[in-house]
Amino acid sequence: MSNCELYGAAVVGQSGGPTSAINASLAGVIKACIEDKKHIDVLYGMENGIEGFLNEKLINLSGLFTLENGEADTQKLDLLSTTPASALGSCRKKLPTVDNTEFYENLISLFKKHNIRYFFYIGGNDSMDTVAKLSSYLEKTDYEMRVIGVPKTIDNDLMETDHTPGYGSAAKYIATTLQEVIRDCSVYTTKAVTIVEIMGRDSGWLTCAAAIGRIVTGYEPDYVYLPEIPFNMESFFEDIENAFKKHPNVVIAVSEGANYGNGHYVGEGTQSGAVDVFGHKYLEGTGKALEIAVKEKFGCKVRSIELNLPQRCAAHLASKTDIDESFCCGYTAVTAAANGLTAQMISMKRKASEEYSVEYLPISVYKVANEVKTVPKNFINDRGNQVTDECLEYILPLILGETEVIYEKGLPKQLIIR
Amino acid sequence: MSNCELYGAAVVGQSGGPTSAINASLAGVIKACIEDKKHIDVLYGMENGIEGFLNEKLINLSGLFTLENGEADTQKLDLLSTTPASALGSCRKKLPTVDNTEFYENLISLFKKHNIRYFFYIGGNDSMDTVAKLSSYLEKTDYEMRVIGVPKTIDNDLMETDHTPGYGSAAKYIATTLQEVIRDCSVYTTKAVTIVEIMGRDSGWLTCAAAIGRIVTGYEPDYVYLPEIPFNMESFFEDIENAFKKHPNVVIAVSEGANYGNGHYVGEGTQSGAVDVFGHKYLEGTGKALEIAVKEKFGCKVRSIELNLPQRCAAHLASKTDIDESFCCGYTAVTAAANGLTAQMISMKRKASEEYSVEYLPISVYKVANEVKTVPKNFINDRGNQVTDECLEYILPLILGETEVIYEKGLPKQLIIR
Repeated sequence: MSNCELYGAAVVGQSGGPTSAINASLAGVIKACIEDKKHIDVLYGMENGIEGFLNEKLINLSGLFTLENGEADTQKLDLLSTTPASALGSCRKKLPTVDNTEFYENLISLFKKHNIRYFFYIGGNDSMDTVAKLSSYLEKTDYEMRVIGVPKTIDNDLMETDHTPGYGSAAKYIATTLQEVIRDCSVYTTKAVTIVEIMGRDSGWLTCAAAIGRIVTGYEPDYVYLPEIPFNMESFFEDIENAFKKHPNVVIAVSEGANYGNGHYVGEGTQSGAVDVFGHKYLEGTGKALEIAVKEKFGCKVRSIELNLPQRCAAHLASKTDIDESFCCGYTAVTAAANGLTAQMISMKRKASEEYSVEYLPISVYKVANEVKTVPKNFINDRGNQVTDECLEYILPLILGETEVIYEKGLPKQLIIR
Repeated sequence: MSNCELYGAAVVGQSGGPTSAINASLAGVIKACIEDKKHIDVLYGMENGIEGFLNEKLINLSGLFTLENGEADTQKLDLLSTTPASALGSCRKKLPTVDNTEFYENLISLFKKHNIRYFFYIGGNDSMDTVAKLSSYLEKTDYEMRVIGVPKTIDNDLMETDHTPGYGSAAKYIATTLQEVIRDCSVYTTKAVTIVEIMGRDSGWLTCAAAIGRIVTGYEPDYVYLPEIPFNMESFFEDIENAFKKHPNVVIAVSEGANYGNGHYVGEGTQSGAVDVFGHKYLEGTGKALEIAVKEKFGCKVRSIELNLPQRCAAHLASKTDIDESFCCGYTAVTAAANGLTAQMISMKRKASEEYSVEYLPISVYKVANEVKTVPKNFINDRGNQVTDECLEYILPLILGETEVIYEKGLPKQLIIR
């Protein structure tokens, strides 16, 4: 373990797709850095993640969030916490492998230039890859800097943590929207199928949240289809036929990543086939593809709804539990680094108590990077078209509570720093 | 004017597409009926509008919403007011022309059977057509019944009223979502176009709401395209090029009804060509069509977002102004009928005072039915790609205030009566 008394500047960045909670983690990092005058003299924010850092696009966050009395401006931090999307901007840059000495030496020269000794990076799988590579390279050098990852992803697919910051708010948005959509769809007596497409390329965690109503209001989509279970069009048609025996308004939740188990996605029919810089297939149109199939098969009214970006940015409906936990993950990242840790990600462990609570534990980032946690078998029913109560009991605590959104002239107030 | 002392049962129905505010109007009708024991002995709700009434599907609303002391259950009515979609169910039935004596005599026999003397119908253009036809037929008979329409449509396209109940909540949802989406889209530095498709087949009122941020936060979509202005693809491409000169993240709001001014819609490329029972063309894919066009022209990242059903059912984000006004429209319908009026729709007139307020005026329903109010010229800029400040000043008061949504276990509580 490194010398605990390492003193210098800190830098924080946000990376990957934004969420409703990613700024709460940033607020946690800011507050902890302002409070820890023993280790950190100034906190910089990288504009647009590591990409902006390479161009020395830095914002003095200590200056922005410190009151005249030297304390953190909690009112401003609260406003930051309820502002959606990455306040510092984001990037999707994948770092080169650690044998690219030129790249990493350049990076380290920039750290040296600003005497940066603490590096915090808030992001998902791909961002933890950045944390891991940087940590790994630093091990081979004599530049002392502590590197900690703060998890963030609405997808909830990071390994070694009970759940991820950002997931609870997205889940709350999805569960609420499904309740509203089910209500909307209930008004007519004619046969209709409504297909709600939910984000989640490789894992169905977000789609699972569509069914939470079952244990709260008693209302849920008729079926839930996840990427974890190979999709079968004939079984799907059978499911719809069975639902029509019960009521005329069938509501279905389907993950964008629904696939046939043979490498082909349900939404491929209308997709471009492009891949992003991490090599992920870019998907669109799962709901639309099923809409067309159902219309052809049943001839009834069919509507597909893609929940789209609001899933990750509808901060007006964030989960208080999620926002609070995201803040704590950011805060803990700083205290962990101050205590000498590096190459860690802050994970959440659910305590085995009656009432829900978590503890924040630093874990090796090498265990996390580039792995995907999928929905386990016991969370999915035997037919593979619904989630189990066990799944819903796992999700429910994560969506509890509402944040105090400040409205000005009818719109939620946001804090914009770039 | 009819005898004011007409005494008997009342019936209320909801028709057409649901909104976040249509149950507030129902709550207003219920409260006024329970309070007016001089004219109304019982209030029935028609399940699924006039279609359900023809099958005598009636719910005793007086029974459901009256406390033991004879007063209206305001707590239950408040919960009804914040529950989205038509609590009584809806229909899209178009009544036959008034020369269909058989149809109308059957209808009147049902009114007689239940001694229904007051008929309230909550809905949009097509529902006001029902109110007008029924009123017109009754004029020729000796059955005395008073018929009043309560306006409802998120589209804001009814004639002879400053605005429509339901519009303000949809506008607030759209304006808020645009603020969140603009924030989300701001995080990357690479060129990207985000196209948000907003409801509104024949009028652009909802799409106008996307720009409200301009006079609140300073953030708005780069452009706003309405059905009122013929769409020109070349001008659209020019607009995007100009926006890219200012920033990399271009956000566009477009109405589903955007069209070339020659009877063809922008979204026709991917639409089915089907028409609904009222002869309206069924549209889909305006955003998707533009997404494809922009991708081809600019080769950059393009995303289209169809706001879809949440625009009309996201009751968790309703406008308090809208919910209160919707309630008052329902309440006023009953007092107007009790005062002897019939063949009326309750309209809202904006008072010429500094501070925003409206008065509720019964107007002849014959003036309203089947006409569409579009966005006036002075609300649209010269190039036809944005709305004017005058337009936004008109909309802003309608989105003000938030309702007190009750959350239970993380989800908004709803009142379900069928």
